[in-house]
Amino acid sequence: MLVVMEAGARPEQIEAVVRQIERMGLKPHPIPGAHRTAIGITGHTGSQDPSNLENFPGVKEVIHVTHAYKLVSREAKPDDTIVSVGGVEVGGNGLAIVGGPCAVESLEQTRAVADGIRRGGGQLFRGGAYKPRTSPYSFQGLGERGLEILARVREEFDLPIITEAIDHESLQLVDQYADCIQIGARNMQNFSLLRSAGRARKPVLLKRGMSATLEELLLSAEYIMSEGNYNVILCERGVRTFSDHTRNTVDLSIVPAIKRISHLPILVDPSHGTGKRNKVLPMSRASIAVGADGVLVEVHHKPEEALSDGPQAILPSTFAQLVTECEAIGRVLGRSLQPALAASR
Amino acid sequence: MLVVMEAGARPEQIEAVVRQIERMGLKPHPIPGAHRTAIGITGHTGSQDPSNLENFPGVKEVIHVTHAYKLVSREAKPDDTIVSVGGVEVGGNGLAIVGGPCAVESLEQTRAVADGIRRGGGQLFRGGAYKPRTSPYSFQGLGERGLEILARVREEFDLPIITEAIDHESLQLVDQYADCIQIGARNMQNFSLLRSAGRARKPVLLKRGMSATLEELLLSAEYIMSEGNYNVILCERGVRTFSDHTRNTVDLSIVPAIKRISHLPILVDPSHGTGKRNKVLPMSRASIAVGADGVLVEVHHKPEEALSDGPQAILPSTFAQLVTECEAIGRVLGRSLQPALAASR
Amino acid sequence: MLVVMEAGARPEQIEAVVRQIERMGLKPHPIPGAHRTAIGITGHTGSQDPSNLENFPGVKEVIHVTHAYKLVSREAKPDDTIVSVGGVEVGGNGLAIVGGPCAVESLEQTRAVADGIRRGGGQLFRGGAYKPRTSPYSFQGLGERGLEILARVREEFDLPIITEAIDHESLQLVDQYADCIQIGARNMQNFSLLRSAGRARKPVLLKRGMSATLEELLLSAEYIMSEGNYNVILCERGVRTFSDHTRNTVDLSIVPAIKRISHLPILVDPSHGTGKRNKVLPMSRASIAVGADGVLVEVHHKPEEALSDGPQAILPSTFAQLVTECEAIGRVLGRSLQPALAASR
Amino acid sequence: MLVVMEAGARPEQIEAVVRQIERMGLKPHPIPGAHRTAIGITGHTGSQDPSNLENFPGVKEVIHVTHAYKLVSREAKPDDTIVSVGGVEVGGNGLAIVGGPCAVESLEQTRAVADGIRRGGGQLFRGGAYKPRTSPYSFQGLGERGLEILARVREEFDLPIITEAIDHESLQLVDQYADCIQIGARNMQNFSLLRSAGRARKPVLLKRGMSATLEELLLSAEYIMSEGNYNVILCERGVRTFSDHTRNTVDLSIVPAIKRISHLPILVDPSHGTGKRNKVLPMSRASIAVGADGVLVEVHHKPEEALSDGPQAILPSTFAQLVTECEAIGRVLGRSLQPALAASR
Repeated sequence: MLVVMEAGARPEQIEAVVRQIERMGLKPHPIPGAHRTAIGITGHTGSQDPSNLENFPGVKEVIHVTHAYKLVSREAKPDDTIVSVGGVEVGGNGLAIVGGPCAVESLEQTRAVADGIRRGGGQLFRGGAYKPRTSPYSFQGLGERGLEILARVREEFDLPIITEAIDHESLQLVDQYADCIQIGARNMQNFSLLRSAGRARKPVLLKRGMSATLEELLLSAEYIMSEGNYNVILCERGVRTFSDHTRNTVDLSIVPAIKRISHLPILVDPSHGTGKRNKVLPMSRASIAVGADGVLVEVHHKPEEALSDGPQAILPSTFAQLVTECEAIGRVLGRSLQPALAASR
Repeated sequence: MLVVMEAGARPEQIEAVVRQIERMGLKPHPIPGAHRTAIGITGHTGSQDPSNLENFPGVKEVIHVTHAYKLVSREAKPDDTIVSVGGVEVGGNGLAIVGGPCAVESLEQTRAVADGIRRGGGQLFRGGAYKPRTSPYSFQGLGERGLEILARVREEFDLPIITEAIDHESLQLVDQYADCIQIGARNMQNFSLLRSAGRARKPVLLKRGMSATLEELLLSAEYIMSEGNYNVILCERGVRTFSDHTRNTVDLSIVPAIKRISHLPILVDPSHGTGKRNKVLPMSRASIAVGADGVLVEVHHKPEEALSDGPQAILPSTFAQLVTECEAIGRVLGRSLQPALAASR
Repeated sequence: MLVVMEAGARPEQIEAVVRQIERMGLKPHPIPGAHRTAIGITGHTGSQDPSNLENFPGVKEVIHVTHAYKLVSREAKPDDTIVSVGGVEVGGNGLAIVGGPCAVESLEQTRAVADGIRRGGGQLFRGGAYKPRTSPYSFQGLGERGLEILARVREEFDLPIITEAIDHESLQLVDQYADCIQIGARNMQNFSLLRSAGRARKPVLLKRGMSATLEELLLSAEYIMSEGNYNVILCERGVRTFSDHTRNTVDLSIVPAIKRISHLPILVDPSHGTGKRNKVLPMSRASIAVGADGVLVEVHHKPEEALSDGPQAILPSTFAQLVTECEAIGRVLGRSLQPALAASR
Repeated sequence: MLVVMEAGARPEQIEAVVRQIERMGLKPHPIPGAHRTAIGITGHTGSQDPSNLENFPGVKEVIHVTHAYKLVSREAKPDDTIVSVGGVEVGGNGLAIVGGPCAVESLEQTRAVADGIRRGGGQLFRGGAYKPRTSPYSFQGLGERGLEILARVREEFDLPIITEAIDHESLQLVDQYADCIQIGARNMQNFSLLRSAGRARKPVLLKRGMSATLEELLLSAEYIMSEGNYNVILCERGVRTFSDHTRNTVDLSIVPAIKRISHLPILVDPSHGTGKRNKVLPMSRASIAVGADGVLVEVHHKPEEALSDGPQAILPSTFAQLVTECEAIGRVLGRSLQPALAASR
């Protein structure tokens, strides 16, 4: 923390700030300069927020220099975290390709898509049983019936399951049926849900909120880890900007930024990130090229009949091409596809 | 809904789109033009999403022209909704000024601030017992103990209470203790919580999400109303942009925009909207001048000791000035302050 | 400037940074802390940029704490600047209302609108002779013929003229014909044009760029002032965000923010700021309420026939109402309308 | 163009809109629906803007469905444009890697960097002689002396030159000395400069503005092409958003979006796009993977001494690695590096 005084601050104003910092149990370090004085602050800030110093006479601004996250940071754990999702590793040197429909609509549809994912070379399956929809009148998912379908499909195709939880009740069920609990972008700062996820047994896939900064994303992961669940996978899925040629703007540079300061794995979701079917393949390649640990994409065998988000789902044939191209690009970076689970049949 | 064909679309491609629209049970209206053909669509869209037409050969784009919200719209209810919060009306021709601390910290602090609000001319009291904080290590509020303090303060000062609920459990308690349930910006699209609020007995103050469009805000209100709770107050609290001189960018033009298409009342929160104490008074004046039904501001008698958001809280003396200036500006628009509740003592 | 070292930085790394700062002719101030060390920097930074220290081993980040603007700041000149535009004062305790068409289309149209501005109580006239248009195929203005029309209208109605220059050539002509040179949002960082404006004799109205920060706006004003032209009026005209209910998002809190750190006057343009006719009146009121020195609005006597930006122009009758309401709100803040020039006829 | 009437619009209101459309010389196509009527418009819109219909009674909104760009579009020219920059092709199946310092500082520095670019495998050289700087007090470039240095370096290293022009005067000189004229982000909507570039003999590299939409970028290219210069190369360099971990947010999905609707080549500039040295290599890989025709990066042999933008410049050794990795990723997409010019010595 650094307090910057105004150019014309008087000595007694500086002294008052110094005394207030000491009253807070912190250590002030005045740095007199040619034009103005700055005061560094060290020590453990407890319940009192030194930002308040901004309101003292003669103070120009208060600048924060340390971060609130601890468990997520590489300073706390230098080595990459590798998260096992039902036996498939996410993070480290491998790449994980996750595919599936936006929503579980029926057993037939889910089986058809899962067959495409398995044949196409994907290692993990995604599909929503609980759908957070902007309008109360849109299809909201099949609920527990959807989770049962996902569980059956996992047995048949040996694809571990990632699916979203939207509240405490659904989280208990997802923790029971699935292999990884997804927290969606709209719930990234639903701190009550994050704490529940931190007490679950399964790993958590945490999507970046639509206008979340890197620091906020890491602090939301910190909520989960601070409850004892250390198996967190981050996911970039596009942020909201003025740019209108895609639904969101995928912020790929967050991948190397996260890798630099955190040990957690990170995937990219170019389907929600762009909202356009024809952008999913090129943005998946770019995601692997920038250093992501894998991608998460929407696949549907009949996208024109999908009950939600059809325009962004790709066909199984495109998914197979995507796996092939991502694998080839991964090799340039010295990475290879994680092995899929051995077929049990 | 309007389907725009590419300039070189062939007749059989147009015909295929027309047939698909009919297969969906909708009515196509082809409009041939000099350069290209467009196809209007009317009828009730059920489970199938015509957006999928974007993937038909020869289609350039699909444009949505109707909105999903119904109950919130002026087409459904032409007259302004007036919501009674513990006997104080919000909406209509009156103005409501809501003040209080960011967080309830103690009975003494809450009483001191409430005394300032009452003397300053405020009609409603706000204060958080459950605080959604970006970091898991920040003060999270006093919980039910905070609600008890708020209830005591209401009795003593005749100020109805608005306070935030962050999950189902806290919502039940807030519904029991308070006069109005606040849903915060981070939970604007926590649809599960919105449905719970729709089943509560008390009115709901719904804050705009940090990157929510006008339509998304209205659809979140629609979630609450679709469950039967018609007493919804909207609240603009700033959106996230690149602009860095304030914490958020207050989007005041949403006030007349909402008034035009919805019957619901709308307040502005310039404290969270700007994050700067010295912007609260001018932005409160501007909020009333643009046509808001009132403002919601943070007040603290010792802001430099506040446990959260101290730098944006104003002093009780500034609050009194704010009420006076808002009242004077309201008169220019033919509006007057709502009467506060008669002191019961 | 402050250099923050990493938690595990070694003493010799800190020493290397300290020596490099000294080599740059600056003074280092190391501040050892419990977890990490920070190093304050004072002195005059010349051609070498201390940001480069970010690349030294053990350095976490480099934080800038001083600003590059000088002449625009209140530290340089504590009193408000009042700019005379053809005899009408902008800034200080008065309010200036500027109206006129987006584009000068003909003498008849310009006279008709000017008559409405004069009768409605406006003191300054605006109208574009050079129009920066997004498409090369849109109407680009009448050029010098438009300036001649503006000059004739000034004589007839005693309304000083503000009009836009888009390059060196048009700037020479605008400087000759008009009373104030407008630099549009798209040219806010056309530094070559800013320097030319700094050498002109007439005052300059500088509009904020579509994604300019407060600091960038002030630095663009600094360009003009550093060439010797101290008569600069700033203008907020909305910034580009995701919010789609208006064309831009008007950032009214920049008005008190500018007033705090700069002595320059600032107007608001709610016509371009919202792009919607029905938002101009309420946002004009809000602009005065927040503390702006006036507003700049588009007026057209037949907006449905305007050659550019018709949907945001208001009618002369609405303009008269706007002047009345702005005057009433100004009185609440102790401000009054500047007197218009005495009619010369 | 489509006019959407309100749900309760009366027949005479619809009739009035229809008549007005006809008065404009356009053809109305009313589409009655269950809830509301829409009216399609076809024909050539001349000077009158149908947006004005938004102000007719009973009209809900007016929606634009056609685009203003013509020459830049694939509808006008289906095949990819390949632009020759001093003999090196940009566009088509090849990849072009452009490197060089932010600013030309001296002959020695420029030669040292050019040697690194040539040895590292780059085909084109970039370096600024005219620098648009946010502050008037920052280094503004060497001007014509810088162009002379660039010309000498081209002769010595057989690297064609791309350099920025900031006004008419510098554009004439750049057109004379260099192989490609860069128009920077801040000048993307300096329409007067775009027209001058359209009359130059050399190709133009047009950078996307900091808050420009895809459509605005294409329309700025249209300005250049409409003056007769068809050799335009587009360049994504990041847009301004709330996201603060990089200086700008690189919007890679614009690459496939541009490829779909335009025949022009597009490069990516990850140096300005991220502002961080350690993000340049991963974002360059991602740019090639998403389908860009090459990258443009800042290289400096002593970045810690650079007079501008040092923190984002990479070392020549990193540049060589970047070329190798981009080439390997290009092969996955069936693309190969353009051959550099044969060394003339």
